[in-house]
Amino acid sequence: MGVEVLPKTALFKQIALKLKVFPNFRPRLSVKEILAKYPKALIKKASQIKALVFDVDGVLTDGKIIYDESGKEIKAFNVKDGLIIGHLRKAGIVVGAISGRESAAVSKRASELKLDFCHQGIVDKAAVFLKLIEFHEVKRKDVMYVGDDINDLSVLKQVGLAACPADAPIYVRKFAHITTTAKGGQGVVRELADLLLASRGYLEKVVKSI
Amino acid sequence: MGVEVLPKTALFKQIALKLKVFPNFRPRLSVKEILAKYPKALIKKASQIKALVFDVDGVLTDGKIIYDESGKEIKAFNVKDGLIIGHLRKAGIVVGAISGRESAAVSKRASELKLDFCHQGIVDKAAVFLKLIEFHEVKRKDVMYVGDDINDLSVLKQVGLAACPADAPIYVRKFAHITTTAKGGQGVVRELADLLLASRGYLEKVVKSI
Amino acid sequence: MGVEVLPKTALFKQIALKLKVFPNFRPRLSVKEILAKYPKALIKKASQIKALVFDVDGVLTDGKIIYDESGKEIKAFNVKDGLIIGHLRKAGIVVGAISGRESAAVSKRASELKLDFCHQGIVDKAAVFLKLIEFHEVKRKDVMYVGDDINDLSVLKQVGLAACPADAPIYVRKFAHITTTAKGGQGVVRELADLLLASRGYLEKVVKSI
Amino acid sequence: MGVEVLPKTALFKQIALKLKVFPNFRPRLSVKEILAKYPKALIKKASQIKALVFDVDGVLTDGKIIYDESGKEIKAFNVKDGLIIGHLRKAGIVVGAISGRESAAVSKRASELKLDFCHQGIVDKAAVFLKLIEFHEVKRKDVMYVGDDINDLSVLKQVGLAACPADAPIYVRKFAHITTTAKGGQGVVRELADLLLASRGYLEKVVKSI
Repeated sequence: MGVEVLPKTALFKQIALKLKVFPNFRPRLSVKEILAKYPKALIKKASQIKALVFDVDGVLTDGKIIYDESGKEIKAFNVKDGLIIGHLRKAGIVVGAISGRESAAVSKRASELKLDFCHQGIVDKAAVFLKLIEFHEVKRKDVMYVGDDINDLSVLKQVGLAACPADAPIYVRKFAHITTTAKGGQGVVRELADLLLASRGYLEKVVKSI
Repeated sequence: MGVEVLPKTALFKQIALKLKVFPNFRPRLSVKEILAKYPKALIKKASQIKALVFDVDGVLTDGKIIYDESGKEIKAFNVKDGLIIGHLRKAGIVVGAISGRESAAVSKRASELKLDFCHQGIVDKAAVFLKLIEFHEVKRKDVMYVGDDINDLSVLKQVGLAACPADAPIYVRKFAHITTTAKGGQGVVRELADLLLASRGYLEKVVKSI
Repeated sequence: MGVEVLPKTALFKQIALKLKVFPNFRPRLSVKEILAKYPKALIKKASQIKALVFDVDGVLTDGKIIYDESGKEIKAFNVKDGLIIGHLRKAGIVVGAISGRESAAVSKRASELKLDFCHQGIVDKAAVFLKLIEFHEVKRKDVMYVGDDINDLSVLKQVGLAACPADAPIYVRKFAHITTTAKGGQGVVRELADLLLASRGYLEKVVKSI
Repeated sequence: MGVEVLPKTALFKQIALKLKVFPNFRPRLSVKEILAKYPKALIKKASQIKALVFDVDGVLTDGKIIYDESGKEIKAFNVKDGLIIGHLRKAGIVVGAISGRESAAVSKRASELKLDFCHQGIVDKAAVFLKLIEFHEVKRKDVMYVGDDINDLSVLKQVGLAACPADAPIYVRKFAHITTTAKGGQGVVRELADLLLASRGYLEKVVKSI
């Protein structure tokens, strides 16, 4: 029952063990299953996306605005959204954030994630968005934008793929092509990054290469 | 498939894409759907509300009382409740908080949200409430109050629309006309603000104007 | 539709409005409904309880052990468990905590809640428990104890009413007469305090008197 | 109805009370029930495990990366994962952590839990893992490893029992023999520790001895 390091062999042995102990285990689980829930037209569109841009509060976070007694802000991100961003960037996708609020914790997280840009305290998100994609030489139709509130509508309406978290208000979800399964802060960006990477065959390569 | 900036066209194109890729997508989603779950009599009442007053812990927050090692309090609000308050005030609705507890984090959040008032450490909420609405020249029947505990009952019993979060005790929910879908801290005020703004046609204007 | 201050009238008017707007609204909601889910033998036992003693982590909290970068501990309680403790003590019930861990945040919360006792860093909970109830002149059979882990078993096995949160391990739930609907930190003590107060008719008086 | 201290008698009396008050109560609850959901082959394997090694973020925690305004990290663990680790070590099982990130809060928690090792900031987890088990003289097939992300795959593929939390991505769950019921931070390690301890009859002894 010793499991070999050779990925394929190891996987087959594990599936064999699973089938032995879990009668309901279905060995067809694979990276492709990530794509199974999306329509083909959407997957094709996802494979052409060149930039992933997102709002912060309610997307990277669960929307909690946390203050300590001296009025300083604490912010909670999700590790699930972190690791995958490195892979997005390796795959040549521009990754950045535009936030209506401003917080030092966001700057810290942005720098840790090596985002291509992170603009905070933005009232007119559409104006900043247009400048940024011009700078990065990406067209609107090749951008996926993720937002969850009224001040994201002006960008959501313009992009090739508009996405929002499961817990966005109904009048925001209306403007989104994709509503993620995850709520804000539960890995919204991860879910969308998995789609982008799987749609171009990149994710399967990563998993197989390890 | 490039989406135009013109809101209406953009929306139609997005709906077309959605229908193509999501067979179950129903394009009739609209701001009006927010009202669909409320009875007409309640919507009429909501359209007449002139002030939205709420408790803090368990309403704006999920009820967590957080202390650090030096006994200082940390408090977590929800960004969903924030942005909409600006719209409430633009729509001419008085917005304020009355809290039985006291915390510097609440003052910080209240000032950020530009609340019309924020009174903390209040034992007799009814007395303070009556003075406040007199000062703001609003009648009890034109107030929506949101509270979740025993010390809110004295105000809940007096107002035109009494509301409480989904996770309030049963003997508080009994006194509320509306129990929100959201639990405390999950956007209780947002859900009610959406009702108030949609009931007077304001929300549709905001979404369409962007 | 203006709601009068007189509690009873107000309630009737609110019920009338509710019946008008919510066809499914059932006006028989009352404090007694809190007791409806418990068997009569248990309610009788609850009405005789003279002390409510509880563990802290996983009962008053959701079990999160939170450290900042300097190793100082932050702890999150629930406002729902707070207000009701004042009422327990007015009803003559001794209220106290016994914790296996130690934290300044717990001392702060205990003092705020005016607990009759709060002992921390206790390895042998049974020994401390027996001394405490002797000091407060309460018999084991008249105590409700709430715990969620292995180190609570020695006390849970001894008391008249043993309770644990919904998310306690199965081998702890086995020793409890009552498993609350609430998970740790979601108002476990509130749920049990409501039972204790409702079982002796106290809760109804409080709600009606406001 | 006074409950005796003698464990067995106490238990029978409590079951009698439960049967009286809770018609649906099934007295066959026992430590063995923990094993009921696992296949026999897996339980046998679990009884042979000599080391439990886990990732930190998303396993011991719910994946939240929390920063305060000065960029210092706060981290939230679960008390459920704590107490049981002492029992694992008493049962002779090596317990340690390997984390891709680095944080003082993790060091604090590791020292509190008396982990046999805690290595942070590890890019190549497989290399470190192999050195560690060599040092502790444990074979790969006798290790249970718990991880939730891409950088855990290189270890998950090698061990005798690979486990991951309920909320790990599908392409990580594929490589795990066991997906816990708990999500990250909800007691993932507790659930697996209960399996390890119950599989060798240790847990029953602990519960009965109290």
